[in-house]
Amino acid sequence: MRAAIFNGPRDIAVGERPDPVILQPTDAVVRVSLACVCGSDLWYYRGLSPHTPDGIGHEFVGVVEAVGSAVGTVREGDLVIAPFAFSDGTCPHCLAGYHTACVQGGFFGGNGIDGGQGERVRVPLADGTLVAVPAGAYDDATMRSLLTLSDVMGTGHHALMLASAKAGDTVAVVGDGAVGLSAVLAARRLGAGRIIALSRNPARQALAREFGATDIVAERGDAAVEAVLALTDGVGVDAAAECVGTGESLATALGIARPGSMVGMVGVPHGAEVPVGKLFAKNKGIKAGGAPVRAYLPALLEDVLAGRLNPGRVFDFETDLEHIADGYAAMDERRAIKSLVRFG
Amino acid sequence: MRAAIFNGPRDIAVGERPDPVILQPTDAVVRVSLACVCGSDLWYYRGLSPHTPDGIGHEFVGVVEAVGSAVGTVREGDLVIAPFAFSDGTCPHCLAGYHTACVQGGFFGGNGIDGGQGERVRVPLADGTLVAVPAGAYDDATMRSLLTLSDVMGTGHHALMLASAKAGDTVAVVGDGAVGLSAVLAARRLGAGRIIALSRNPARQALAREFGATDIVAERGDAAVEAVLALTDGVGVDAAAECVGTGESLATALGIARPGSMVGMVGVPHGAEVPVGKLFAKNKGIKAGGAPVRAYLPALLEDVLAGRLNPGRVFDFETDLEHIADGYAAMDERRAIKSLVRFG
Repeated sequence: MRAAIFNGPRDIAVGERPDPVILQPTDAVVRVSLACVCGSDLWYYRGLSPHTPDGIGHEFVGVVEAVGSAVGTVREGDLVIAPFAFSDGTCPHCLAGYHTACVQGGFFGGNGIDGGQGERVRVPLADGTLVAVPAGAYDDATMRSLLTLSDVMGTGHHALMLASAKAGDTVAVVGDGAVGLSAVLAARRLGAGRIIALSRNPARQALAREFGATDIVAERGDAAVEAVLALTDGVGVDAAAECVGTGESLATALGIARPGSMVGMVGVPHGAEVPVGKLFAKNKGIKAGGAPVRAYLPALLEDVLAGRLNPGRVFDFETDLEHIADGYAAMDERRAIKSLVRFG
Repeated sequence: MRAAIFNGPRDIAVGERPDPVILQPTDAVVRVSLACVCGSDLWYYRGLSPHTPDGIGHEFVGVVEAVGSAVGTVREGDLVIAPFAFSDGTCPHCLAGYHTACVQGGFFGGNGIDGGQGERVRVPLADGTLVAVPAGAYDDATMRSLLTLSDVMGTGHHALMLASAKAGDTVAVVGDGAVGLSAVLAARRLGAGRIIALSRNPARQALAREFGATDIVAERGDAAVEAVLALTDGVGVDAAAECVGTGESLATALGIARPGSMVGMVGVPHGAEVPVGKLFAKNKGIKAGGAPVRAYLPALLEDVLAGRLNPGRVFDFETDLEHIADGYAAMDERRAIKSLVRFG
């Protein structure tokens, strides 16, 4: 099959990879309809993280082509959404809602597991992993929103869960990438009273406003902290969503969080440190991790299908598999928020 | 008045300090009945933290001797409990239950504020700070328990609140000092299903059992993590209370916390670091801070007066003000869990 291949920093090729087949009775093989490029893919694209020399990408929706003998919840022909992590759905961690800590689980794209940026994917633990979309004809806007449930929409929502955000809260979102914008949308969905988006980019500011941001802060670093404190009468926000992963963005999130509140961190940490003394001085907390999007998928899917949630608007660049390198470059150069990859 | 004075590491004297007077209309002056030595006092006692050269100690119960013209909730003759921090009770942080972040607040014992280890204390913001005990004759056991509400009992409870512990949870407590033992008691009060106390000391293990510990782990470091994982089928605990403050104890608490759970840290940080990558890998969190014991005082007081809660048992050494140095030494040498200081 054709698939994207990572040759090294800023070198994404498209070539042949082995056709996936059913290896375990719990496997499914999915033919990819839509995939995309993640902000976290840019870490290895930019040479800042290592990556194994196999499949890349971890977000996809597609159609089931084959299932193993033990698979019961999806069947050939089903339109399915794959969370970026596979999981059994039955271990103590899955049952507690933390599917990304599944004792049998793992992640798509690397370490011998197919990536989403290819024509087909072997999906381990298909019953625990895949979520079937009810049969029907979906327009392109809906399909794009379904694709975000593979990662960014669930990840944005997770940032708020980690931060213990609740209805009525003043929430701040640090990071204006697709995850940050999804967190803004998730905050509106939760009923946040006020949503402060930190963004310097006019196009992203505009989308943040459409997604529900009530205030935009364009400053960075200490100036951003001061600006958010000024907006909140010096108190700080009730919940801070960290959607970048750098030391600066974490420091900003911790700086704007009010005493007794939490920072929810979903940006993959790169050089971020937690100053324990600063946490202690103001009873602040940080909770961090890869989103168990599988846990959130059913409720988010219901909202997308009902037309109440339109996270697919984060895709502002589209290409096909053969030109996927353009999608990476557009995001790397911040010309695109998020690049969609459409399969024929 | 007579008061304890910190002359330098392992040098606690008793001498004269100025008699407190009402300086602000919101002040009260309290004559101390019982005070005690805190585990956190040992940091400067051992020369590991600086301390200003004035009053020491921050835990006391006593009788109101005088109040300023603006004080309305306590009056002369009232038996009162003082939280270790004073607070106005009206600022946004107090209203949110985080009195230790009060915009007007501060801490007893140092920086120009009287300590609890002296005959009298000027209490700023008396209406927001002091909690009056209903008039009555209380036996010594009850008085000892009331004294713990000044700090350790509320701090142990706070560790569980920071860790989001709830009824039915498996809870672990790292640290067998008075705060750790109080956290065990607080866990039982919350209805924890299982309470794992980490302690190597037989006397403390015994008190932990009496306070509600269902399991004792005597190992330390990696061996402690393995032991707790073995007790929990490899899952880890639902909530971990960190009651020491060192790097080793924080690492242990993070190691035994199950994916998706929180470590509540009330040990004052000394050399503790948070590995963000390890948090991220398993969706763990840490929330840390000085307990807003004022927020918890009314409910804990009710339980003590009803005889449901007996935290005063943590005091296993008693002295008077003139011999307070013995109380420090007994705790420093781990001959005592916590030293009570009785005033004439």
